[in-house]
Amino acid sequence: MIYLDYNATTPLSESVKQSIRESLDLFVNPSSMYKESEIAKQKIHVARKSLGLLINANENQIIFTGCATESNNAVVSSCVDGTQNSKKHIIVSSVEHSAVFETAKHYQKYRNVDVTFVPVDKKGIIHLKDIGTAVTENTVLVSVMMVNNEIGNIYPIKEIVRIVKEKNPATLVHTDATQAIGKMDVDAQDLGVDFLTLSGHKFYAPKGIGALYVKHPDVFTPFMIGGHQEKGHRAGTENLLSIVAIGQAAEDIAQFHNYSAIQAKRDQFEKNVLKFIPGSKILGDTDSRICNTSCVLIDGYSGIDICEMVNEIGDICISSGSACNSVILEPSHVMKAMGINKIPIRVSIGKDTTDKELTKCLQALIKTTKLLKRK
Amino acid sequence: MIYLDYNATTPLSESVKQSIRESLDLFVNPSSMYKESEIAKQKIHVARKSLGLLINANENQIIFTGCATESNNAVVSSCVDGTQNSKKHIIVSSVEHSAVFETAKHYQKYRNVDVTFVPVDKKGIIHLKDIGTAVTENTVLVSVMMVNNEIGNIYPIKEIVRIVKEKNPATLVHTDATQAIGKMDVDAQDLGVDFLTLSGHKFYAPKGIGALYVKHPDVFTPFMIGGHQEKGHRAGTENLLSIVAIGQAAEDIAQFHNYSAIQAKRDQFEKNVLKFIPGSKILGDTDSRICNTSCVLIDGYSGIDICEMVNEIGDICISSGSACNSVILEPSHVMKAMGINKIPIRVSIGKDTTDKELTKCLQALIKTTKLLKRK
Repeated sequence: MIYLDYNATTPLSESVKQSIRESLDLFVNPSSMYKESEIAKQKIHVARKSLGLLINANENQIIFTGCATESNNAVVSSCVDGTQNSKKHIIVSSVEHSAVFETAKHYQKYRNVDVTFVPVDKKGIIHLKDIGTAVTENTVLVSVMMVNNEIGNIYPIKEIVRIVKEKNPATLVHTDATQAIGKMDVDAQDLGVDFLTLSGHKFYAPKGIGALYVKHPDVFTPFMIGGHQEKGHRAGTENLLSIVAIGQAAEDIAQFHNYSAIQAKRDQFEKNVLKFIPGSKILGDTDSRICNTSCVLIDGYSGIDICEMVNEIGDICISSGSACNSVILEPSHVMKAMGINKIPIRVSIGKDTTDKELTKCLQALIKTTKLLKRK
Repeated sequence: MIYLDYNATTPLSESVKQSIRESLDLFVNPSSMYKESEIAKQKIHVARKSLGLLINANENQIIFTGCATESNNAVVSSCVDGTQNSKKHIIVSSVEHSAVFETAKHYQKYRNVDVTFVPVDKKGIIHLKDIGTAVTENTVLVSVMMVNNEIGNIYPIKEIVRIVKEKNPATLVHTDATQAIGKMDVDAQDLGVDFLTLSGHKFYAPKGIGALYVKHPDVFTPFMIGGHQEKGHRAGTENLLSIVAIGQAAEDIAQFHNYSAIQAKRDQFEKNVLKFIPGSKILGDTDSRICNTSCVLIDGYSGIDICEMVNEIGDICISSGSACNSVILEPSHVMKAMGINKIPIRVSIGKDTTDKELTKCLQALIKTTKLLKRK
């Protein structure tokens, strides 16, 4: 298998696997009162510190969650439940991950929350004035992702925070940094956001563990209700094994800064694609894009058909968009927001992806476009 | 360490540990479209089937969640969001786990939901007529746990379902079976409930994985929003490693029926406690109690002090109530509901607990009551 779908999920790193193996016998409930639970508490403390260091946050600002989806849901919930405004308004970009995009719609439907979906242009670029204009006295939350999962655009979160707070200092700003961690440096304090989401399985930790950075945890209204875990911010017995694992992954990734090596591979791949595959086109904002992601539209072909065939002929794993929405066989809301009613392919690479793997992928793509009938 | 706090959490069984070790390299996103993800999908399918078999449910009725707390939150959320009643009323017992108890309060505060907390008597017994009386045309949910985590009472869920549906056939009934699985046979169909919660780490699987049985998944309104996982019932990338693990644990526990051996040990322990510790008293409904739990009040002593000292002198892990509320140093809402303004100790044993361990615990308790000053 040639795996080139790192935006969907990543393999566990060796050190993460080792941390899991070593923790299989550590089972006591970290919230128990006996001395044996101190070891578990200490492990969680270390992991929380590692995550804090990774994004330049205080460990007290890190809340462990079950996944990025939970973190994103929790932000919307906290902003809606935790504010006194009689009319509540939230702003999200029209290219957010569905864990924000669909959640906003859910609150619109079930909670009478007013939602503005900020448009993007054909390159997926968000125009800052659109956000500034949208903020009102009722705006409780603005949520814009740091990096788009399909096209890889990096959004100017720091500027968004500035514009939002200028217009309404009480409006909270969230960024879903799920696709940023491990692919670019992320500094929560410098960004100035109130909330930042991250997901373990996007940076070599297991699925089923995420975290939420909360700038002011004291005014956070919990989403998961019922126990005093996470200082009362997230109920549910602590997921000890996965917390240890995400801590290890955070420690590893904090040491990794060689994004330019990843980018060089991706750029070379794209150069070859454009050269050898007629009708191919790179989507997204090529001036502000994450190092590892390549979203390619090939004129006359559906990305779904291409993905299937490269998998068939080359045992290559690429995708045609978000795995979270893989059941939908039509252009994603991201493509539609960009005015593109077609399905591209997404090649997303990791720390250990080799040039050889990318060459094989290119060859399979070339072969596929020759075998498949152009529509 | 002598571990006698199985209601707080359980160690991983050997087979569960093995299933985790074997799955560390299985990392592809189960929702991806390439053939490699079929193996992951298949593993999830097998686990879902095992959980279904364990509680006599169809696999399509099993939704994987992050923990029992999430399952419980999801039930309340689905019943409130998913019904059209203009006035919404829910009924919960006053001895529910805080994941139901506090969630009910949360919906009371933030969603104007009317909540009835059904009382219990001094033995923690719920009187069925109190439930029948409480049900109105606006009642969207009745939630009563199958087994209480502190006192071990088994509640008559089948009768509760009958009474509720007689009064209002549209009212949905939920039981939190977190403390039942692995300690008694649980048959979701026979119980007739609409929802049933279970938690992996209470039956030898890891923390961070739970499930929710939903009788009619088609009318379930999701709590975790944003992706099409779990047939659209629970967003978030599937927690593959832990799903494999809970599936293995379910398979193991489905083969275990020797509850009477556990009960014999517990009964002998209680007999000795009553004989050798003056002022000791067994709490709960001794006529309808789960096999493994012993909740003991020792006159003149706080359970917190006793737990601390038996841990100190005997390296024994017992608790004074729910680990989820361990930060509260006063009698739990369960004790208060029973009219007991004191803190007991809880000894909860597992499949592999030995008589010798219980004897050591007894000795430590005797010593502790001699060393500690009676208040």
